[in-house]
Amino acid sequence: MCELLGMSANVPTDICFSFAGLMRRGGQTGPHRDGWGIAFYEGKGCRSFHDPAPSAESEIARLVSRYSIKSCTVISHIRRANRGRVSLENTHPFTRELWGRMWTFAHNGQLKGIKDRILTFYEPVGSTDSEHAFCWLLDQIRMQYPEPPKTTGGLMKLIRHLAADLGTLGVFNMLLSDGRYLWCHCATNLAWLTRKAPFGAATLLDADMSVDFSQETTPNDVVTVIATRPLTRDEAWTVMQPGQMAVFRSGALVTR
Amino acid sequence: MCELLGMSANVPTDICFSFAGLMRRGGQTGPHRDGWGIAFYEGKGCRSFHDPAPSAESEIARLVSRYSIKSCTVISHIRRANRGRVSLENTHPFTRELWGRMWTFAHNGQLKGIKDRILTFYEPVGSTDSEHAFCWLLDQIRMQYPEPPKTTGGLMKLIRHLAADLGTLGVFNMLLSDGRYLWCHCATNLAWLTRKAPFGAATLLDADMSVDFSQETTPNDVVTVIATRPLTRDEAWTVMQPGQMAVFRSGALVTR
Repeated sequence: MCELLGMSANVPTDICFSFAGLMRRGGQTGPHRDGWGIAFYEGKGCRSFHDPAPSAESEIARLVSRYSIKSCTVISHIRRANRGRVSLENTHPFTRELWGRMWTFAHNGQLKGIKDRILTFYEPVGSTDSEHAFCWLLDQIRMQYPEPPKTTGGLMKLIRHLAADLGTLGVFNMLLSDGRYLWCHCATNLAWLTRKAPFGAATLLDADMSVDFSQETTPNDVVTVIATRPLTRDEAWTVMQPGQMAVFRSGALVTR
Repeated sequence: MCELLGMSANVPTDICFSFAGLMRRGGQTGPHRDGWGIAFYEGKGCRSFHDPAPSAESEIARLVSRYSIKSCTVISHIRRANRGRVSLENTHPFTRELWGRMWTFAHNGQLKGIKDRILTFYEPVGSTDSEHAFCWLLDQIRMQYPEPPKTTGGLMKLIRHLAADLGTLGVFNMLLSDGRYLWCHCATNLAWLTRKAPFGAATLLDADMSVDFSQETTPNDVVTVIATRPLTRDEAWTVMQPGQMAVFRSGALVTR
């Protein structure tokens, strides 16, 4: 199983603390040795770091966990390969452009028969189920909305419907973002936590590391973290139910 | 003016030496303080690093110049902004998927009226002339070849024609790659150099740094480096002529 990590915040926030916990699971406290990746949005820009090497041993992962890249939306993934060999092109998150925005996608699970679904605009570069599912999903959105919709109600409904449809093919834990919204679909494991004032302290489950968020934040900050499993021992995580969708924007839950 | 750097090689080769020279031009020996980026192909995979901060001060640039990422095709760019503000989404190289391959593009120059050209499949995320030109170029390729062509003759001709067309709008020094080919179009400044056996020593123009390639290579290695201006003082660079195109694959010049 792979591990997912996402963040949605109302102010540019670094993800160093959560990422430090996640990267330990990549070959040290966990078995996910088959690469890792992370995408940061900064305004409309999106930069990502990918490494087919285990995150616990990756020099790039050390840079990312040390170097404070501040972002309002982050998607990260560490991989335990089941479909598709260990290689750079099979390393999540995947990115494609739609409507002049970069969309980013990471997935945990397997989808039986996904490669039978016909693709139109987007084609996978690698050989994973996941990238095929992402291309199919963006194809469907693009066919329904060749131009960006003026209101988001229909788009929200469509993405919920597409995620549920993909969920019928197997296990579909997903993080998806266009830089503004963060769509989280739970099949088996996904939990989230919103940090806001009054801020307290938190201790990682996977590393001997604590942080006092009251020292790091301003009273108006709202930061939501989503992960396959809770990352801290002393905070109240909301564990999502199978088939559930949660959508965040600027740190706040906008629909579920 | 921005600085371009490209590499094409027949074996995965690190670009640390050339990149060390280039990054000094980003705010130290040169005036290109407005961000930088680099894309490395590894098989079909492509990973890129982008930073809107000056390369001479960038922690990510230090990682890239120190950490030996081996690749057969590289495109890098350091930016002096003239169109489009300094931001992540305006930082080259730009990337889009076509035919299940990641295409990468970096440009130096300005193109008057480029934004009047209508786009179909690809849309810019940022506000630069360059990204609009890239989207238009891929659009034209995709319209001509909805499926990847079986032979490359027509594609080579098309890209040459499109680059010449863009060249009529202003200054169009370009590096473009699909991971196999590296297309180089010269408007004003572009020079290249092929290193192969017998290998010798080289000294950077911008930094006090030498390398003896005979210690770093095998006799079969063929590595071509393309840059806005020659990077070394003691090698025979081929300075390209205005309007000239050079295409490399596996380090070798395949057509010009």
